[in-house]
Amino acid sequence: MPKNPRVAIVGATGAVGQTILSILEERHFSLDSLRLFASARSAGNAVVFRGETLVVEDLETADIQNIDIALFSAGASVSKVFAPRFAEAGAVVIDNTSAFRNEPDIPLVVPEVNREAMFAHQGIIANPNCSTIQMLVALKPLHDAAGLKRIIVSTYQAVSGAGSRARQEMLDSTRAALDGHAFDYQKFVHPIAFNALPHIDVFLEGGWTKEEMKMVWETRKIMDLPEVGVTATCVRIPVASGHSESVYAEFDRPLSVTEAHSLWRKAPGIEVVDDPAENRYPMVTQAVGTDPVYVGRTRVDLSNPHALNFWCVSDNLRKGAALNAVQIAEELLKGPAH
Amino acid sequence: MPKNPRVAIVGATGAVGQTILSILEERHFSLDSLRLFASARSAGNAVVFRGETLVVEDLETADIQNIDIALFSAGASVSKVFAPRFAEAGAVVIDNTSAFRNEPDIPLVVPEVNREAMFAHQGIIANPNCSTIQMLVALKPLHDAAGLKRIIVSTYQAVSGAGSRARQEMLDSTRAALDGHAFDYQKFVHPIAFNALPHIDVFLEGGWTKEEMKMVWETRKIMDLPEVGVTATCVRIPVASGHSESVYAEFDRPLSVTEAHSLWRKAPGIEVVDDPAENRYPMVTQAVGTDPVYVGRTRVDLSNPHALNFWCVSDNLRKGAALNAVQIAEELLKGPAH
Repeated sequence: MPKNPRVAIVGATGAVGQTILSILEERHFSLDSLRLFASARSAGNAVVFRGETLVVEDLETADIQNIDIALFSAGASVSKVFAPRFAEAGAVVIDNTSAFRNEPDIPLVVPEVNREAMFAHQGIIANPNCSTIQMLVALKPLHDAAGLKRIIVSTYQAVSGAGSRARQEMLDSTRAALDGHAFDYQKFVHPIAFNALPHIDVFLEGGWTKEEMKMVWETRKIMDLPEVGVTATCVRIPVASGHSESVYAEFDRPLSVTEAHSLWRKAPGIEVVDDPAENRYPMVTQAVGTDPVYVGRTRVDLSNPHALNFWCVSDNLRKGAALNAVQIAEELLKGPAH
Repeated sequence: MPKNPRVAIVGATGAVGQTILSILEERHFSLDSLRLFASARSAGNAVVFRGETLVVEDLETADIQNIDIALFSAGASVSKVFAPRFAEAGAVVIDNTSAFRNEPDIPLVVPEVNREAMFAHQGIIANPNCSTIQMLVALKPLHDAAGLKRIIVSTYQAVSGAGSRARQEMLDSTRAALDGHAFDYQKFVHPIAFNALPHIDVFLEGGWTKEEMKMVWETRKIMDLPEVGVTATCVRIPVASGHSESVYAEFDRPLSVTEAHSLWRKAPGIEVVDDPAENRYPMVTQAVGTDPVYVGRTRVDLSNPHALNFWCVSDNLRKGAALNAVQIAEELLKGPAH
């Protein structure tokens, strides 16, 4: 891998693709060249990056040789077809979709949690689901200290996770509701304005949604804890961007709030916002546009002294998607730990 | 208690008081007379009830003799002063505030759960907190069949629980956010528009909020299960009315989804909305303005075969407050079971 790689973004015009572009700029990601790909519908669009105008290429027809790192975020069906082609042509693909996350021989990586796993890649590295990433960044230092046994999590997820058009539809339908107008939803099965929808992704066996099962499967793989108990209830709420999570976690031994705070403060990517007396706790309105996973409302459980409850917030388009992908690229360039 | 009681509503101009009025109308509650009380600020206002214009009386100065049932919903500090006075003057007070809920000799009643407890009253009957009521209506038939051991609940609570002005402020601030305007919050410590606030009522020991502890204390008292484990995380979301809850409940024995459905269908006050294949699950947009507690998204837990997860929705101003209070009055008139 060259020090200044030739980078591609596939799905460059989507919500995550746009966020990847701004994160590459913010972090002064050192690259030799940047190419942007999207579907024919968006091909030909001009995008400004570091003051330079780039033209979006048609993924179907473009030449995909001479790419070192390809950041994919154009949906699972696109990744299934094109990620192997890019890998075949010599790129390392960092894939933000669910296409390869459960493949045993494809690494699924959160750099703060299982950085070294990425170096076993065979051309594709998978980026986990947004709701899993922020929860595991928060749980990893607690697990290292006290041994994670079980998680029960309820999520409060923003609509931007469903894409730019879903986000716009939530905003437009909210205005319609305020004005007392009817609204014809295209992206939501039920109204999202002033509602809470316990339904993200498709329903699977046992009444679980795929979003909920992602939190089970991905947690076990990333933490390398094949037996850890995970119960998730995933809920979409009328928030534009930023996911919140109510997390209950059981450990092998008791953890005090003070010890949890201390572990979190020493860990990468986490900011503790936990001062009830001052009404300070994590909120999406403060988290959006920033990098950390915010934790607070930490309480020792009343029924199980080995369990902690906390509230965890992060920008789902950044740490939950684009930032985590760019961090994987950065760590890939640094190489494995010695 | 006369068959047609003389009824009073204290806090008649508030969100719950107004809902009590419409529920008395809807249910053709048989009464001899109705008097309305509020603070001096609202005294003198005219309210139409069953086509008749009633004038709101000033609570501070009114004569409170000759009242059989007084429905209080004007805040805990008002109840603390005036509920004992009304009881002393001969009324049975049904108090919707937190003022007396934890008093050992004051019954705390959800008619579907512990109807008979109300008849031990000594002039005051307490109406539980909204988030507790709907959860216990759903859990009671499961408990009767399988023995409840432990609850872990995360709430998605509407702003109307904080009063009419909080509700209006959420709507106004949402419009301001859509328009890109600043908003000066009076009723919320932090922005509620497009946000999730893990903070309802004041903070107590251990980092728990009083709203969360209400779910612990009230569950134990109403269910008469002083040892039952309850962990609550209470969260305000930008929904005008209607509370949703993600409930994890452990029992003495396994309960299948089919058995839970069957128990719920036989129980009073519950409607099962649980058909993932048809995208049917409880939602506040369907629950608001109706009486039932809606349950769905029922799943046998993946880690503990003795546990069920479900999603529970109800109108917090109706079953969570006004309706439950009116139901207590109705049952009081019927008298104890033989």
